[in-house]
Amino acid sequence: MALLSVLTPFLAVILCLVVGFMLLKSRETTSTPPDKSKGAPKGDSRPWVDQDLQDDTENTAREGDDDEWVDGNDEEESLAHVPYSPPRYPEDKMLERSKDFYTVMNQRRSVRFISSEPVPREVLDNVIRTAGTAPSGAHTEPWTFVVVSDPETKHQIRLIVEEEEEMNYRQRMGDKWVHDLAKLRTNWVKEYLDVAPYLILIFKQTYGILPNGKKRTHYYNEISVSISCGLLLAALQNVGLVTVTSTPLNCGPQLRLLLKRPANEKLLMLLPVGYPASDATVPDLKRKHLDDIMVHI
Amino acid sequence: MALLSVLTPFLAVILCLVVGFMLLKSRETTSTPPDKSKGAPKGDSRPWVDQDLQDDTENTAREGDDDEWVDGNDEEESLAHVPYSPPRYPEDKMLERSKDFYTVMNQRRSVRFISSEPVPREVLDNVIRTAGTAPSGAHTEPWTFVVVSDPETKHQIRLIVEEEEEMNYRQRMGDKWVHDLAKLRTNWVKEYLDVAPYLILIFKQTYGILPNGKKRTHYYNEISVSISCGLLLAALQNVGLVTVTSTPLNCGPQLRLLLKRPANEKLLMLLPVGYPASDATVPDLKRKHLDDIMVHI
Repeated sequence: MALLSVLTPFLAVILCLVVGFMLLKSRETTSTPPDKSKGAPKGDSRPWVDQDLQDDTENTAREGDDDEWVDGNDEEESLAHVPYSPPRYPEDKMLERSKDFYTVMNQRRSVRFISSEPVPREVLDNVIRTAGTAPSGAHTEPWTFVVVSDPETKHQIRLIVEEEEEMNYRQRMGDKWVHDLAKLRTNWVKEYLDVAPYLILIFKQTYGILPNGKKRTHYYNEISVSISCGLLLAALQNVGLVTVTSTPLNCGPQLRLLLKRPANEKLLMLLPVGYPASDATVPDLKRKHLDDIMVHI
Repeated sequence: MALLSVLTPFLAVILCLVVGFMLLKSRETTSTPPDKSKGAPKGDSRPWVDQDLQDDTENTAREGDDDEWVDGNDEEESLAHVPYSPPRYPEDKMLERSKDFYTVMNQRRSVRFISSEPVPREVLDNVIRTAGTAPSGAHTEPWTFVVVSDPETKHQIRLIVEEEEEMNYRQRMGDKWVHDLAKLRTNWVKEYLDVAPYLILIFKQTYGILPNGKKRTHYYNEISVSISCGLLLAALQNVGLVTVTSTPLNCGPQLRLLLKRPANEKLLMLLPVGYPASDATVPDLKRKHLDDIMVHI
């Protein structure tokens, strides 16, 4: 008993260390800038107004980056500035172009039923080129598009995604009564991963390597790559190809290893791409009206 | 001494509780699903392969959402499915469309020099409509576009952004020798916030309110809204308007209050929109080549 009371503080301290370590690990996963001493959080200098400041966007406080994503901001001082005069359209032409583009984009739907018909490779190249025109924090262009057409690799991807997805569903069902397992099963069987002529796996580069070998955090890499995905979806829709936006849960590491991507890259999205199957269907749903998404002041 | 050795375990336990509480708070700020018991992390059932699993994407493990963003996934069972047959183009037409779209998008640059010329409101409406066609996790459409043309509100926004930006710059300079403050100053003076005919402030809705009054977490809301921004940028470029992508640091809460947005909305981006100024310049930089952003397998 005396021995136990002597040991208790030690056990308590060990518990503290374990909890502290977990805390440390959980912090690492949020994208804290590596050098805190320089990128002092603004919270030091003024009280936080409300909890908003704790959201993701604010937490990725950056060091050395402007808030404007002026392309190439970091090197801007050493770069010459050149005149910029993009095409200018008369008002009626602008209105027509804005309507036409909306009409094309509004026909976009997430489609699971993809035809195996081949898609011209050059079209895919242009789609990826278009995605690469997105703005990015400090012009880091933190994206890698892995385009898979090799049947064996596609099948490996399918096995990884389906295995994780099935486990996910089974766990989620938990103590619920499984009254229609067959129906449920359609949720984790992803035939399109074999069938679609192309799978595009989009990786975000969470950091880069500087010439001196040090890591350079890519702030806003997830937002940048997501914007780039928006352009990619627009480019696919523009040529009549379909996809379904997916973010495979927990498959990132396995897929990264399968595709031999480096450690600074994390899977953000997986898009199967092709023509829609001739019997493709989509749920008959509506989008919000303009008044429900826009406020004019 | 005896008293101390009796008290030590208690002190240790209190320390543990404090550390544990901090851990809990730090978890709250990352978007952990509210009900952990149901949304059991996959890590419980299999060893983590590597640190990848701890990235943002994986941490937003969801309960009740599929990994596919099939529009309206949640209500899919109750929704009728309808045939889907978007326009199909012959291969030469696809190739032409893919090139043309790339050419237009590749002309996009982030532009700080925006003309005060008025822009037709209807064009702006169509641009926002286009942004609203983006896919979103479980078809939550978690975006609000606040379009500001009122001069007084624009000026209030400018004051908030510039004040924060100036503090940010001054802090960042810290012990560095300020050899050209005038030059630096251009970094926090944002005249375009007064000048641009429109400011678009894009808010992400981090959660929704269910009919029973409970909160419903909008998983992947940041990715969804960023994709929507990609479509918005494409739509602007398509009609010959310019913007500069910015994520104002620490201004979110003040701007949210100014614009009277509810607590579930967080500012993601601020885009000044207009025609480019006649003397607009941009840094003379290049984009990565296709081979540097695409891997084909």
